[in-house]
Amino acid sequence: MGSLHADNLESISVCSQNPLDPDEFRRQGHMIIDFLADYYRDVENYPVRSQVEPGYLHKRLPESAPYNSESIETILQDVQKDIIPGLTHWQSPNYFAYFPSSGSIAGFLGEMLSTGFNVVGFNWMSSPAATELESIVMNWLGKMLKLPESFLFSSDGSGSSGGGVLQGTTCEAILCTLTAARDQMLNKIGRENIGKLVVYASDQTHCALQKAAQIAGINPKNFRAIPTSKATEFGLSPNSLLSTILADIESGLIPLFLCATVGTTSSTAVDPIGPLCEVAKRYGIWVHVDAAYAGSACICPEFRHFIDGVEDADSFSLNAHKWFFTTLDCCCLWVKDPNALVKALSTNPEYLKNKATESKQVIDYKDWQIALSRRFRSMKLWLVLRSYGVANLRTFLRSHVKMAKQFEGLIAKDKRFEIVVPRKFAMVCFRLKPTAILDRKLGENGTDYIVEDQTNEINGKLLESINASGRIYMTHAVIGGIYMIRFAIGATLTEERHVNLAWKVVQEHTDAILGGLNGNIDHQLED
Amino acid sequence: MGSLHADNLESISVCSQNPLDPDEFRRQGHMIIDFLADYYRDVENYPVRSQVEPGYLHKRLPESAPYNSESIETILQDVQKDIIPGLTHWQSPNYFAYFPSSGSIAGFLGEMLSTGFNVVGFNWMSSPAATELESIVMNWLGKMLKLPESFLFSSDGSGSSGGGVLQGTTCEAILCTLTAARDQMLNKIGRENIGKLVVYASDQTHCALQKAAQIAGINPKNFRAIPTSKATEFGLSPNSLLSTILADIESGLIPLFLCATVGTTSSTAVDPIGPLCEVAKRYGIWVHVDAAYAGSACICPEFRHFIDGVEDADSFSLNAHKWFFTTLDCCCLWVKDPNALVKALSTNPEYLKNKATESKQVIDYKDWQIALSRRFRSMKLWLVLRSYGVANLRTFLRSHVKMAKQFEGLIAKDKRFEIVVPRKFAMVCFRLKPTAILDRKLGENGTDYIVEDQTNEINGKLLESINASGRIYMTHAVIGGIYMIRFAIGATLTEERHVNLAWKVVQEHTDAILGGLNGNIDHQLED
Repeated sequence: MGSLHADNLESISVCSQNPLDPDEFRRQGHMIIDFLADYYRDVENYPVRSQVEPGYLHKRLPESAPYNSESIETILQDVQKDIIPGLTHWQSPNYFAYFPSSGSIAGFLGEMLSTGFNVVGFNWMSSPAATELESIVMNWLGKMLKLPESFLFSSDGSGSSGGGVLQGTTCEAILCTLTAARDQMLNKIGRENIGKLVVYASDQTHCALQKAAQIAGINPKNFRAIPTSKATEFGLSPNSLLSTILADIESGLIPLFLCATVGTTSSTAVDPIGPLCEVAKRYGIWVHVDAAYAGSACICPEFRHFIDGVEDADSFSLNAHKWFFTTLDCCCLWVKDPNALVKALSTNPEYLKNKATESKQVIDYKDWQIALSRRFRSMKLWLVLRSYGVANLRTFLRSHVKMAKQFEGLIAKDKRFEIVVPRKFAMVCFRLKPTAILDRKLGENGTDYIVEDQTNEINGKLLESINASGRIYMTHAVIGGIYMIRFAIGATLTEERHVNLAWKVVQEHTDAILGGLNGNIDHQLED
Repeated sequence: MGSLHADNLESISVCSQNPLDPDEFRRQGHMIIDFLADYYRDVENYPVRSQVEPGYLHKRLPESAPYNSESIETILQDVQKDIIPGLTHWQSPNYFAYFPSSGSIAGFLGEMLSTGFNVVGFNWMSSPAATELESIVMNWLGKMLKLPESFLFSSDGSGSSGGGVLQGTTCEAILCTLTAARDQMLNKIGRENIGKLVVYASDQTHCALQKAAQIAGINPKNFRAIPTSKATEFGLSPNSLLSTILADIESGLIPLFLCATVGTTSSTAVDPIGPLCEVAKRYGIWVHVDAAYAGSACICPEFRHFIDGVEDADSFSLNAHKWFFTTLDCCCLWVKDPNALVKALSTNPEYLKNKATESKQVIDYKDWQIALSRRFRSMKLWLVLRSYGVANLRTFLRSHVKMAKQFEGLIAKDKRFEIVVPRKFAMVCFRLKPTAILDRKLGENGTDYIVEDQTNEINGKLLESINASGRIYMTHAVIGGIYMIRFAIGATLTEERHVNLAWKVVQEHTDAILGGLNGNIDHQLED
């Protein structure tokens, strides 16, 4: 480091300026805006999935922090040279992996404002606007989703209502609601029974639930990932839930929590919320609905039916940072009974006491979440809702769904491929069919030895070959034993031409892979 | 809402532009930079503590989101008109409340870059730069703090080292380490013993620990807030810890976790880490050191001794968003045994499987934290470290300490006041002395009826009177039964003149309050 002996040199390197000097802020801020505007202009040209090797950055950066200051110009050069090659470009129009992380100008500006104000809104007093704007936008979005009144703040501000809160991620949202449910139950049955509590989900439920259950001290043996099947399109069957619950009760265990999903990660499957609640409620189970990805689409009337039944759930969440043009992180959580959260999560140290809290006329959001400190996240959601309005937001979402349909149409024309599960939103799950590979193999040696395993392997090779090219980026899932490629549309910059290009890339790599299998290439296009 | 029936009007309101159009991004981005630069220029003039009443914003904003888009110009006008009055201005140079939330140009720019890239760095593959830069800057900062090698990533990248990770907040950092400690212990003694685990801290420890313990399923009866006293300057006594542990073992309980604090929230007290570790390690207790506020100062050689003994702890954290010029949120956590975190927090769903993870040559930070998704937080810390360098960062911190000394000096000259606990960093804890109030009362009626309670009450009135004026903002704590005013320096824009002004405000309000007690005003200045 050498910092200590260099301390006598400090006079040389001391900034003459305050590190928040308004004029310097203006100068450097404009530079970064231009840098990012150029990035968006050029992002299409970068390899989507980063092509660096593990450890690449350790080789480029020094071992220790600099002793003296460096200029923003130097730093931005290094961002371009050292950081950008190590990014996987989630904002690229050629990004179709995982789920989208859909940025927007409004979301970015909102984040800038909240970062600029840099208030720490743990309670109302610490920045009333942060708390109040959050309650307001959560009601706005709740109404756009046609959530029942019981999830919204009452307009008269009375404390006996539901309400919404912004969390960082779904895992945090689930951990908070699970902790609330757990403590509510343990207060009834005694804390010594924590080892008997059972958490339910389907085998398609996001791993966030399992993680939240681990953290909350639920015995891992009492985590039920109930199998799903093609028969229910990989949605959780209420009958399966019921029989699992009954078996647990028979074993002396205590049902606690169900997480139902609208739009699973693997295949955007939808659990039937209403029928699941009907079963769960018989046994006093807290039902959380995780609509992290697909919840956004439910602001469009034609998709709203996917959350029918939510009125019987206890909590509902979606990630505005996935497919709602709001930058990471912004998980919207609504609960019917905020007091359950507050009872489980509140702390009341002397140093935070204040008149507003004592008046009980205000919300202190610190008691609705894990952490004490919290960012002014509602600012960006407010800007997104106002900058675009309900109409444009619907249009944006529909354009992604339309492009997904377009991609489906392209697949349908190539008989080497199949759609593995029906498309519901803007993600298409497809694969090279066994017969496409079988034909090649038969051509080679006439023996029918192709099995699903080999189909899976070849689809995996196809995906890796495509991703390694850097031209587009998709990811995979395995469902019902089938390896499939997920084509998730939602990057804000994606247009029809990118979808057409993506299909061309898929075909080219398919030609190469299949050609490699039998030494020649011929397209099996239908016309 | 009326959104549904208005759907046929959508063609009118559809944005012609992509919501991430580079040119429009540039135009609007520059506007926000100017808006924020003006904000920093003017922030000194705003009332520091917001003066709005509960519910103020509900009266100003509509009940529902707009159907059509609104211009950024309109929105910014509303930010100025409706949001800024509802902010408590943590960036004001007249802000001395809680602990600082010290922004800087570099921190802001870093946040802009990570927001602009908007990558979701849950594993290495999802954006290698995000993971690698985080490891690198955590080593940089660890070296600046002279943390032992055992907390740092080894330079050869071997997996058997310690290492650092960026969390959102201290509560998350503690919850992760506590969960790791809990599962490590339960794997040895059996999960059925979760109800026997005990968590230790002092009565000065931040409420984040209690909250983390609640969430992790520790029985609230097994949370020990061990009393401290003036004799140890409100640091936790190793003897008190020992006797508490012994009593618990005697009762059949199992000691699990100790949180030692360097710089408590109430008074910046420092627990003696070395001697506490010596006791804790005898009983296999995981020791976490929470240096949320004061850890930053330890990059200056003259403060480093406050974390002496950290080599015997298991984990160490500080909040770069408090007093290290990095915007919220940025909690730096180092652990000796990352595998303990990974074992407790990892999930490995098929849809995240990738070659890099399988190679075991990379870190997947999702397994070091609560959430799966994570922001590119290292970008802002990297910019702060490079833009200022070690030398300037020390200078900035020292200037705050110097101003705190200056404020102490001003207090010392006015015999109505006293310093309640010795100042260690940049926070001064003071109050109006009982004798100041006593003199007034004796002047009134000659009777000595003043007790501590009344002194506390009058100090509370003084503080509320000052804060209500909006000229400066401070908060309080109660320690050893004494209500004291906390004057925490650390807002980036604060200069000596603001400290002098603050003291003038304190004196004016003191004159008014004491004058109100006996009907006249005379300063008791020594000269």
